Amino acid sequence: MATTKDINSRAASTNQTGFGTNSSYSGGRFYNKDGTPNLQVDGVSFLQKLSLYKTILKMSGSKFLAIILLFYFAINLFFTGIYLSLGPGNLGGTEDPGALNEFWEAFFFSVQTISTVGYGHIYPRGLATNLFAGIESLTGLLAFAFATAIIYGRFAQPRAFIRFSQNALIAPFQKGTAIMFRLAPYKHNHLTDAEVKVTLAMKLPEEGGVTNKFYSLSLEISKVNSLIQNWTIVHPINEQSPFHNLTLEDLINANAELLIVLKAFDDSFSNTVIARASYTANEFVMGAKFKLMYHRSENKQTTILDMSKLDEFEKVELPVQMYNQR
Amino acid sequence: MATTKDINSRAASTNQTGFGTNSSYSGGRFYNKDGTPNLQVDGVSFLQKLSLYKTILKMSGSKFLAIILLFYFAINLFFTGIYLSLGPGNLGGTEDPGALNEFWEAFFFSVQTISTVGYGHIYPRGLATNLFAGIESLTGLLAFAFATAIIYGRFAQPRAFIRFSQNALIAPFQKGTAIMFRLAPYKHNHLTDAEVKVTLAMKLPEEGGVTNKFYSLSLEISKVNSLIQNWTIVHPINEQSPFHNLTLEDLINANAELLIVLKAFDDSFSNTVIARASYTANEFVMGAKFKLMYHRSENKQTTILDMSKLDEFEKVELPVQMYNQR
Amino acid sequence: MATTKDINSRAASTNQTGFGTNSSYSGGRFYNKDGTPNLQVDGVSFLQKLSLYKTILKMSGSKFLAIILLFYFAINLFFTGIYLSLGPGNLGGTEDPGALNEFWEAFFFSVQTISTVGYGHIYPRGLATNLFAGIESLTGLLAFAFATAIIYGRFAQPRAFIRFSQNALIAPFQKGTAIMFRLAPYKHNHLTDAEVKVTLAMKLPEEGGVTNKFYSLSLEISKVNSLIQNWTIVHPINEQSPFHNLTLEDLINANAELLIVLKAFDDSFSNTVIARASYTANEFVMGAKFKLMYHRSENKQTTILDMSKLDEFEKVELPVQMYNQR
Amino acid sequence: MATTKDINSRAASTNQTGFGTNSSYSGGRFYNKDGTPNLQVDGVSFLQKLSLYKTILKMSGSKFLAIILLFYFAINLFFTGIYLSLGPGNLGGTEDPGALNEFWEAFFFSVQTISTVGYGHIYPRGLATNLFAGIESLTGLLAFAFATAIIYGRFAQPRAFIRFSQNALIAPFQKGTAIMFRLAPYKHNHLTDAEVKVTLAMKLPEEGGVTNKFYSLSLEISKVNSLIQNWTIVHPINEQSPFHNLTLEDLINANAELLIVLKAFDDSFSNTVIARASYTANEFVMGAKFKLMYHRSENKQTTILDMSKLDEFEKVELPVQMYNQR
Repeated sequence: MATTKDINSRAASTNQTGFGTNSSYSGGRFYNKDGTPNLQVDGVSFLQKLSLYKTILKMSGSKFLAIILLFYFAINLFFTGIYLSLGPGNLGGTEDPGALNEFWEAFFFSVQTISTVGYGHIYPRGLATNLFAGIESLTGLLAFAFATAIIYGRFAQPRAFIRFSQNALIAPFQKGTAIMFRLAPYKHNHLTDAEVKVTLAMKLPEEGGVTNKFYSLSLEISKVNSLIQNWTIVHPINEQSPFHNLTLEDLINANAELLIVLKAFDDSFSNTVIARASYTANEFVMGAKFKLMYHRSENKQTTILDMSKLDEFEKVELPVQMYNQR
Repeated sequence: MATTKDINSRAASTNQTGFGTNSSYSGGRFYNKDGTPNLQVDGVSFLQKLSLYKTILKMSGSKFLAIILLFYFAINLFFTGIYLSLGPGNLGGTEDPGALNEFWEAFFFSVQTISTVGYGHIYPRGLATNLFAGIESLTGLLAFAFATAIIYGRFAQPRAFIRFSQNALIAPFQKGTAIMFRLAPYKHNHLTDAEVKVTLAMKLPEEGGVTNKFYSLSLEISKVNSLIQNWTIVHPINEQSPFHNLTLEDLINANAELLIVLKAFDDSFSNTVIARASYTANEFVMGAKFKLMYHRSENKQTTILDMSKLDEFEKVELPVQMYNQR
Repeated sequence: MATTKDINSRAASTNQTGFGTNSSYSGGRFYNKDGTPNLQVDGVSFLQKLSLYKTILKMSGSKFLAIILLFYFAINLFFTGIYLSLGPGNLGGTEDPGALNEFWEAFFFSVQTISTVGYGHIYPRGLATNLFAGIESLTGLLAFAFATAIIYGRFAQPRAFIRFSQNALIAPFQKGTAIMFRLAPYKHNHLTDAEVKVTLAMKLPEEGGVTNKFYSLSLEISKVNSLIQNWTIVHPINEQSPFHNLTLEDLINANAELLIVLKAFDDSFSNTVIARASYTANEFVMGAKFKLMYHRSENKQTTILDMSKLDEFEKVELPVQMYNQR
Repeated sequence: MATTKDINSRAASTNQTGFGTNSSYSGGRFYNKDGTPNLQVDGVSFLQKLSLYKTILKMSGSKFLAIILLFYFAINLFFTGIYLSLGPGNLGGTEDPGALNEFWEAFFFSVQTISTVGYGHIYPRGLATNLFAGIESLTGLLAFAFATAIIYGRFAQPRAFIRFSQNALIAPFQKGTAIMFRLAPYKHNHLTDAEVKVTLAMKLPEEGGVTNKFYSLSLEISKVNSLIQNWTIVHPINEQSPFHNLTLEDLINANAELLIVLKAFDDSFSNTVIARASYTANEFVMGAKFKLMYHRSENKQTTILDMSKLDEFEKVELPVQMYNQR
């Protein structure tokens, strides 16, 4: 098996990943498959740790709607309780008193107040009821202002809309081999000045213990002016590569993990967007190459990008001198 | 005719355009005339491919208004159906019952509820009606919050407001020739740190097949601190240029296409804006130069930029040694 | 007098100002004193030239309010006309019919509808009136959504909040002279990574005509990590400077103008902000230096920046060898 | 004691901090502990100095709510005054006139108008009352639009959410010593391309007076691709360091202060965020090193960052040759 020393004689390790090097204190993979860091923050109170903005923006649409409904119901219940506690006779104007009982009358008065619809067939009487109705309508307006804010936040939030292939392939490349994966924008999004950085993380024996080692990988092309179609990211496994002479088994033993960050400018959002991904050694495929994922339209006037082929590859022979020599 | 080998001996091809090099699988021009990529995404569901944000932001104003009206009508119809299904007697308070029939009464009650105007001359009676009216007013508030969000999104969306000349001209330049086109901001927009990148795309024979080749063009000036007036982008056709020794016919045969990306900072939007354009060989004009498009104001105190002259050029003789030598 | 050739032998002219070089076609100063370009766009229709976003964002607060009021009044008048045309009896519910005449009743019904306040003491009767009231309340909601959008746009618009000194001074500097001006943020705004670019524009005789010439000026310090206090921008007038050997008269004759662009990151706005200024030769002061504009607070614990001193300078002797040698 | 000359022979001072060098005119530390500049702006009117945007965005949540409530109350009081001044009989429709006195009736009519709830059991009569009610409902709508704007501004404002350690430590590093402090994001925020700049400020004797001197410190690592865990910033105290040969006493006498600016891209906010901090010599600890602040989760699958340990250090011996040699 290749030793840390072997690897370091070829490629200098640097740590710009944001993770510490103390391997015995860090657990599991560094990044989750979706590119979020596999790290938990502790030692701060829940409220301090909570970022309302991020929590709400990352929530699913249905969960978001459920929370709004729940909140709407709860706040109406709260004001219903107040109106009921003020006693009967504080809500006036109901022309047919038999229709609803006291609770529902107070509840719907609350609903009509907080939504500012205020039909007026039920209306507040007396100082206290009027006061609370005034507070409730202000509450409604502010809550609604807040809802507008978060709906806009969710709506306009810049996102990368990039998909990464499921696997990273070790494929023939020029006269040797290379490790490659691919990505593509899937929403007709047009990215400008896209730049990708790939880091190889490994847990390697060093000075008696095990240390997290990080290697920046040199790429065939790491920057494109425009990212429209699929893009295959290629790291040639040459003599300067930390992958050189390592078998898939070595990589699995060392918990090898590729950490990927893509940064680009999206002109719809007029903003920089970031996509992340991670491939552990278990997601590497030895001896395979990606299938072409675009073709010409029938009228020959357009190119068609077929996202369903993003993950597709076929097995191929690797050149003999690599991976088989030991 | 010039061969791929000839061209490559002068200028190295690189592909940073976001398009693949497999010419037999790509169709038509790379970018449309308006700078959007000529590419269609397939293999993802409609919903996944849909970007609400981008769709709404790129929609025309009248289409946007029509959709809002349609949606308003549809949702009112939906709630009208509910109120009608709850039977007569569930809406009270109409003082002159002969004025409107049941359907319209329910419809306008719905309109008055969803808009929260709630005059109250029609009002909900009974538990179910009250409940649905409460849900409808919440729906109205949320829909309106969403409308505010997208109106703001449309209103504040940074755009480049740049126009490109209709044609690219092959004009005399210094002692030789150059290919040039021009652009100008047309809304008194003041762009800072504008940078332009021009790529020449050609479909050239290579190894038996035809390959998409992309050449970065060197420009006389590719960056300006401020972009206020018109700017003529100039690529000198010297011995390092991929255009060198090619006739207009050669360019048309090779499906030559100029791909242009302009990136600049707009301080009104406080944001980076991007403009794109494309010229196919059919839009090249051999032997022509642009007419001056600005003049002094009558009181001599201001410069006037005349956008109507953006496309205007006049025919000129090209130096003999170019394009005529074969 | 120094000739163009003299100047060009020392400093290369480049044009990155966004203005053309054809002097006989350009009029007046390049930038106005406030940093906006002295250029008018023509040849596009008013609507195409209009940028709603920029127009509204640059409008003064009082003008903005006046337009809102006018619009509110006009739209109410429009709907009043509709309600009146539908004839008497279409608005019901007024308990004391003598109080208001028909016009005002329709007008206030319109006001109560568009604002969605809908008291209900006046309410729509009949199909047509209900329909228009429904349209009016939707109009009100959309107009208000738009108002929210532009109020947010105005409120959150990143601006530089920088003031420039009234004059540029030609002052003693080290063993020679330098031209300098200063600027300071005046709203406790804290700018990061501020960078300034200064260009000298002159109209100089060349090849029989007069040409606009632009010279990038080298600065003592052109970048600061933080911009909190005042910053004096210094261009040393050495032998490489285009100012070298020019008298104030020469500069005035050549319509000399300093064009300044400051770019910085403001962390309150989380955005890049830009400030511009311009000094014509008439705003140069020969033989003067700026007075110190900050001092220690009384309790010695804070530094105080006195903005009222921004423009203050005192006359000083310049070293003999400069400006007097001819 | 080390002299200015000693220090300058090793490290060149540059001033890119935004503070002036005139030490006798500047007071106290340069930056406050929280990273805001210790500077007060004077000589501009309160209104000109006021930045509504920044003031509201930096306000605490409770203060913000209090101001909204106060404003709501005040504006209602103002309109109450108007309605009262129009005399009795101008508000109609109260079915039980004994319930509220004239003041409260006017007040709650105002509340119901400005919030657009408009029950209608109180409604405006007469031209003047209707007019003011119309103005009040417009006021309500605009105020509420403004509230939406500032709530969104507060909600979406990009912030760095970084904590800095309380102290900067002078610790053993490689074969010598280094000054170090650490920082960590505490809200699961994921920062990309983080860059830190550290400046040492000292008040040193020069040419008879005392001058503010600023030294850029070289760092072991000044840029990381991702900032997720804690990051310890290290300035090695070697022979090029301005700290070389200075005792803690020297540093305190010279009012030494470390000024720190961290700039990074946060992809939740899709924006650049900035964090600042400052350590005065009193916050330096001689001979100490930070304790590890992360550990492996119990199931070994995740790394846990313990923010409560951010400030924790332990005393250690420093190598003899440093700080003890004089």
